[in-house]
Amino acid sequence: MVAGSGTDSIRAMKRAADLDRLTAGAELIEPADGLESKLAKGRALRVKHGIDPTRPDLHLGHAVTLRKLRQFQDAGHLAVLIIGDYTARIGDPSGRSELRGPMSTDEIEANATTYLEQAGKVLRTDDGALEVRRNSEWLAPMGMDDVLRLTAGVTVAQMLERDDFHKRYADHKPISLVEFLYPLLQGQDSVAVIADVELGGTDQTFNLLMGRELQKAAGQDPQIVLTMPLLEGTDGVRKMSKSYDNYVGITDEPKEMFGRLMRVPDGLIAKYVRLGSALGRDVADQIDRGIADGSLKAVEAKRRMAREVVDLYHGMGAGRQAEAEFDRVHKEHQLPDEVEELALPPLAINEQGRVWLPRLVATAGLAPSNAEARRQIEQGGVRLDGEALTDPALELAPEELRGKVLQVGRRRFVRIV
Amino acid sequence: MVAGSGTDSIRAMKRAADLDRLTAGAELIEPADGLESKLAKGRALRVKHGIDPTRPDLHLGHAVTLRKLRQFQDAGHLAVLIIGDYTARIGDPSGRSELRGPMSTDEIEANATTYLEQAGKVLRTDDGALEVRRNSEWLAPMGMDDVLRLTAGVTVAQMLERDDFHKRYADHKPISLVEFLYPLLQGQDSVAVIADVELGGTDQTFNLLMGRELQKAAGQDPQIVLTMPLLEGTDGVRKMSKSYDNYVGITDEPKEMFGRLMRVPDGLIAKYVRLGSALGRDVADQIDRGIADGSLKAVEAKRRMAREVVDLYHGMGAGRQAEAEFDRVHKEHQLPDEVEELALPPLAINEQGRVWLPRLVATAGLAPSNAEARRQIEQGGVRLDGEALTDPALELAPEELRGKVLQVGRRRFVRIV
Repeated sequence: MVAGSGTDSIRAMKRAADLDRLTAGAELIEPADGLESKLAKGRALRVKHGIDPTRPDLHLGHAVTLRKLRQFQDAGHLAVLIIGDYTARIGDPSGRSELRGPMSTDEIEANATTYLEQAGKVLRTDDGALEVRRNSEWLAPMGMDDVLRLTAGVTVAQMLERDDFHKRYADHKPISLVEFLYPLLQGQDSVAVIADVELGGTDQTFNLLMGRELQKAAGQDPQIVLTMPLLEGTDGVRKMSKSYDNYVGITDEPKEMFGRLMRVPDGLIAKYVRLGSALGRDVADQIDRGIADGSLKAVEAKRRMAREVVDLYHGMGAGRQAEAEFDRVHKEHQLPDEVEELALPPLAINEQGRVWLPRLVATAGLAPSNAEARRQIEQGGVRLDGEALTDPALELAPEELRGKVLQVGRRRFVRIV
Repeated sequence: MVAGSGTDSIRAMKRAADLDRLTAGAELIEPADGLESKLAKGRALRVKHGIDPTRPDLHLGHAVTLRKLRQFQDAGHLAVLIIGDYTARIGDPSGRSELRGPMSTDEIEANATTYLEQAGKVLRTDDGALEVRRNSEWLAPMGMDDVLRLTAGVTVAQMLERDDFHKRYADHKPISLVEFLYPLLQGQDSVAVIADVELGGTDQTFNLLMGRELQKAAGQDPQIVLTMPLLEGTDGVRKMSKSYDNYVGITDEPKEMFGRLMRVPDGLIAKYVRLGSALGRDVADQIDRGIADGSLKAVEAKRRMAREVVDLYHGMGAGRQAEAEFDRVHKEHQLPDEVEELALPPLAINEQGRVWLPRLVATAGLAPSNAEARRQIEQGGVRLDGEALTDPALELAPEELRGKVLQVGRRRFVRIV
């Protein structure tokens, strides 16, 4: 009896530790006590996470949830990774303000292949820890009857309550009816794989909850929804995405990765540590406090964050090497470690939303006039991230500028944010 | 040459006469000159009309469009009657303010059988004049890919522009997502049968126009949309429908049909003549004018209308017989031909939307108090359409009362409208 109780209490302590680790950093767990109950069953849980192969590369933003999924694997659960090869044909409208064109099957297949390779850098891929499924397996054979059954269970008002749909409808931006099917198909994935838990970014909350509804309708015990915060890109403004050129790819070379991470605004360093590195919450909190009370220089914190992220994807010591390489290149190009940040001046952006280089240089205060800025450009005195720009007619998109260092002559620098 | 021109001009005159007959009474023809162009092709047109077998009986409301379809047959065109056995499973949300539950396949099949029998009373059924198709033929085999293609071409805002959806959304009444699929499926019917023209009631305008869009997307010459006015039921208020008990079934017995038609409010007699009988527009206009200037008693006009409608469905002379039967029964029950009409008093309707008989009798002014009304009821002195109601606790739905004659004692009558 006594021994039994001892074993029980050890089990209970392990479960409490697991729960603590698995819920760390989560934005939402629905229902709040749901994960605890599922863990108490004592069996390996089926933990679903879906990725639509709409881009060829995974980045640190994807990795936030993938790393949470890895924690579930490490605690003895099964990761069920859904490659949304069918849903990619619609394109998840979550969080987007525009309709995207449909993708070709070839593109989707190519992306799916690279996704799997890349996900293997985060997830354990041994049998028993990872199950990979493509949702065309169950979605493509669905017929009109299934569609009627699925769509009968949800109302238009429920759909329009979703933030992004609501906003687009209110702004008179078109929402294609096919986009209303997306959450239902993603929910159907949960039914197909009999998910116990589904992980996703906060922009996936609606879709994940839809999975619970469809599972209930199918007579299944509904999945626990666990969402992770979204990681802003290196511009510090938008969600990380290849299309904004504000991303850090998880297969980027160490030097490239380190350089991109050094563009992260000071205010986001702790968040990158928390969501993007293997350092614990305590270190992230220390960094927050250190920067706040002045005991830690932001640039040192940023270097540590960048080293840690590089180590995570390229092995211990890779961060230190990348840093040395970064310093060497910067010394050559005479870029200082600390550069004043400058919000892209609104006056520098023309009506077409483009930035004319001479005006940028002038409005940034790096030249007294457009004319003088042109002269500097023509003479090769203007550089962007160390690269000389010599065409005075050059127009750039704001996305091409953000996070980069604009340099005029040998001593004047700003980082465009 | 002269003879040729003569033939051409005879053809042109025939086409003009056809056009005049075929467009008579139409509420909308879209595009306005479209039917003329299609007729000018000189070939038999494929004229589509769809009916969902959601009820076992066709009524005069359905017949308005069926009779227009018959005119197309008589002009040498092919009627393509779509039995919406598949769409009935969704239920056309057009014009309804509530979501309806799904129907069983058995019910749908039984209704489809009676519909076809009954439609044969209006349409020519000889080969070459009628093609009957069930839309499960092409809708049931559709797959998810087809659904994605169909739904990608239409926006949520377009759907919510439809009057009934707009109103339900604004009133916070649920619209199931499956209802948004209905117009697309009905439109797909037009693609499947390669319709040249589609006929429907005005409440079908949106769905019929959707057929044009889908035909264009499928590379077809889009159908001409021709809508007919809706016929109010015998209550003079709502669209004719079995569920409101305000209908005249096209297979009703002559006596029943005549009796129901005699409940039509005076203001609708000419419309019933125009849309429900074989009498021409001129007669309907005469009736309108005659009632207005007092040269024609409304009850005489109503009797003529009722005789003509009965003749149409039961053969020449059947109307006169039904009228005699009606008079004999009314004499027995001492119901007068002309009865004062009374709008159902709002005070008679309780919070549950039901009408308690004694209160109705009292608020209608046929008894001085609820107590006296109860006494009359218990003594068998209260009749509804000649039938004694002896339960003083009886509660009725407003639909069960409208169009009927409430009688107290031998001399007091009102017709509830």
